[in-house]
Amino acid sequence: MDGAEFRTRGREMVDYMVDYIEGITSRPPLPRVSPGYIRDLIPDQAPRTGETWESVKADLERIIMPGASSPACTELEVCMMDWLGKMLQLPREFLFCEEGKGGGVIQGTASEATLVALLSARTAAMHKLRDDQPELTQGQILDKLVAYTSEEAHSSVERASLIGMVHMRLLKTDERGSLRGTTLETAIREDREKGLYPFFLCATVGTTSRCTFDNLTELGPICTRQGLWMHVDAAYAGSACICPEFRYLLDGVEHSMSFNFNPHKWLRINFDCSAMWVKDRYAVTEAFEVNPLYLKHDHQGQAIPDYRHWHIPLGRRFRSLKVWFVLRMFGVSGLQQQIRKDVSLAKMFERLVQADDRFEIFGEVVLGLVCFRIKGENARNERLYKMINDDRRIHLTPSKVKDIYFLRFAICASSTQMADVTYAWSVIKELAHKMAASEKRQ
Amino acid sequence: MDGAEFRTRGREMVDYMVDYIEGITSRPPLPRVSPGYIRDLIPDQAPRTGETWESVKADLERIIMPGASSPACTELEVCMMDWLGKMLQLPREFLFCEEGKGGGVIQGTASEATLVALLSARTAAMHKLRDDQPELTQGQILDKLVAYTSEEAHSSVERASLIGMVHMRLLKTDERGSLRGTTLETAIREDREKGLYPFFLCATVGTTSRCTFDNLTELGPICTRQGLWMHVDAAYAGSACICPEFRYLLDGVEHSMSFNFNPHKWLRINFDCSAMWVKDRYAVTEAFEVNPLYLKHDHQGQAIPDYRHWHIPLGRRFRSLKVWFVLRMFGVSGLQQQIRKDVSLAKMFERLVQADDRFEIFGEVVLGLVCFRIKGENARNERLYKMINDDRRIHLTPSKVKDIYFLRFAICASSTQMADVTYAWSVIKELAHKMAASEKRQ
Repeated sequence: MDGAEFRTRGREMVDYMVDYIEGITSRPPLPRVSPGYIRDLIPDQAPRTGETWESVKADLERIIMPGASSPACTELEVCMMDWLGKMLQLPREFLFCEEGKGGGVIQGTASEATLVALLSARTAAMHKLRDDQPELTQGQILDKLVAYTSEEAHSSVERASLIGMVHMRLLKTDERGSLRGTTLETAIREDREKGLYPFFLCATVGTTSRCTFDNLTELGPICTRQGLWMHVDAAYAGSACICPEFRYLLDGVEHSMSFNFNPHKWLRINFDCSAMWVKDRYAVTEAFEVNPLYLKHDHQGQAIPDYRHWHIPLGRRFRSLKVWFVLRMFGVSGLQQQIRKDVSLAKMFERLVQADDRFEIFGEVVLGLVCFRIKGENARNERLYKMINDDRRIHLTPSKVKDIYFLRFAICASSTQMADVTYAWSVIKELAHKMAASEKRQ
Repeated sequence: MDGAEFRTRGREMVDYMVDYIEGITSRPPLPRVSPGYIRDLIPDQAPRTGETWESVKADLERIIMPGASSPACTELEVCMMDWLGKMLQLPREFLFCEEGKGGGVIQGTASEATLVALLSARTAAMHKLRDDQPELTQGQILDKLVAYTSEEAHSSVERASLIGMVHMRLLKTDERGSLRGTTLETAIREDREKGLYPFFLCATVGTTSRCTFDNLTELGPICTRQGLWMHVDAAYAGSACICPEFRYLLDGVEHSMSFNFNPHKWLRINFDCSAMWVKDRYAVTEAFEVNPLYLKHDHQGQAIPDYRHWHIPLGRRFRSLKVWFVLRMFGVSGLQQQIRKDVSLAKMFERLVQADDRFEIFGEVVLGLVCFRIKGENARNERLYKMINDDRRIHLTPSKVKDIYFLRFAICASSTQMADVTYAWSVIKELAHKMAASEKRQ
């Protein structure tokens, strides 16, 4: 949708809102639909190519309004989570349509998804430990629990362990930034020897600092064998897996108990929207369920999930609407196109860096993030970073992994084009030149 | 703003959005403002009467855009939390403008505010206990902690204790539904005698089931004396306290360590927006702070708060914008007017119920919630409730307190008028009559 069309459609929506408010007394206060009604009205997967705005808007009145905000809010979310799950070729056990114990939910951020996974795993582990050793107090059980993640995982993973009051070990990655099976196995063995109870691993697909990938195909079977809940955080990289050529990044996800990625990062869906799936939704509700009368309703315990037991907040926004709009307006192919454009721009930037022998690429460019640095000591890179941001024509963020400081060039805005990349590179080169010149003068 | 004006202004905003996107390359990627810039540009309190849309819109470009989303998002929130705090006449220690340790933050829901309060209190208590008894493990300390709330508190309070892994006792209320000082004191004494460590009380101002009020002026000094963190959850009733005649409901809040209310419930601000204040913001960040390099910035540790350490999610939405818009468009007096209209409609409904001798009011009507029932046994009320919702002309929810089942008539929509109240009452009377008739036939 270009700017001109957005102006027209935006106006239509403003009118729709006012008409709705002005005519609200003519609508029934309670919807006249049966549980599951939306599933019968919409396709069971996202469209391959984009649809017209007219068709999307017509369905608002036809499909959503009869179900008002409740149950439409829940039912559309159920369908959208299945759409997204199928786009990622997630194992069927994660989908509602399998009518097993799996399903998905929209969380706000990956931090919340990780926390929910950790708390669910904690509850399951505590039940198991209490069965085995009924003499232990709750606190004594907590003292035994140990969770793992890689030293390159996002800070929110460690933060989840602070909130959950469980010990978390940050395990070493290999030279490519990947957490490997042998490292996890050693840690589990060490901890069991100390009498501890390993219960949770948060593996990352696409780390924040440098977009590296934990080895799910090694880690997963170990977790299954050892009884650990593996959560896979693919907050950034997950979106790319809607392209068949990147789906290999999720190999091994079938061993996980829960998985999340953030469509708000790279699928053109506005913040916030973190999509999370679990294989056993009862393991999640078990951790959160408190059930007062003023929240009871007729459809409890049925196939439709009661999402308030799936996350920290009680109230919820109708976030599946924006997912529905975006998936239909772009279609899967439109979103794939965006991912491929961004990755190819990142590859182009990589080539520009490689062609300049003052610079080096740090790590591997797999998706839209290019980590690079001036060859040599960290201090020069820290100076260059400061110069770039003081200059204010472009904006970068740095990071440091295994004591190596580097700059991060991220392609993620839908409007970014080749000219933006070459412009940014020209600014970086110019400032690097200026820095070198000033170093010579000293 | 009526429908016609909303159509015009909505169109202007759609155009503004498109113009922004289309002209984005002409804007600098980094803002050129200094920390604290917004405080110098806007008044230090909410306007008494509503302003024009033109003045609000002009300030978008003049005040917000130069600070882009960051730091404007944080700075406007700081100012809005002070505006809201002053509207409620909160103790000055809760405000940023005092330049002490206090301040406010927008959370999503009251569930999150309560959880953040409990986790902050937990961290402070654990530090204290660890200093006193360094031989205790983390789990052994947790086993000693005990939190309190009233049996009529919202289910999310108990849920916070599940997440926080601390024992929570639900204390009995008096006949008016209020948690009293002597009850708390007895509980603390009992628990200390058992070797436990009472650390937290969540008091409620306006319970969900029947809008009752814990006795803050009794509870507060006890918490201070006994070293408990008192959190006050005024999710619903807090909004009313912008009217001087209802401010007495918050008497005693000066003894609390944290306080929250939900402007999204009754101040015309869209969901979600739960306003939370703390007296010691370092007690909150202490519970959450993990600080990686890719999130470091130049202004850390300064007077401007780093809100990511104040809540569960890491990313944040720009929710202070809607607060700013609403407070300016309605002015404090416009919002007071809404509260007063709703309370007077509730009082009117109360009189209708009282005038019908088949019915009785349950408890006291203080704000916009009227709890009522058919005199006599619960079963008849349950039947009436079912008839009302099956009838579908109006919608109510029931609740049960101390084994008394009752119906809840809540006035909270801005458009509700006297005619809606009399209509609802006529439906209820008609159905009560029908029920009585069918009972006679049996």
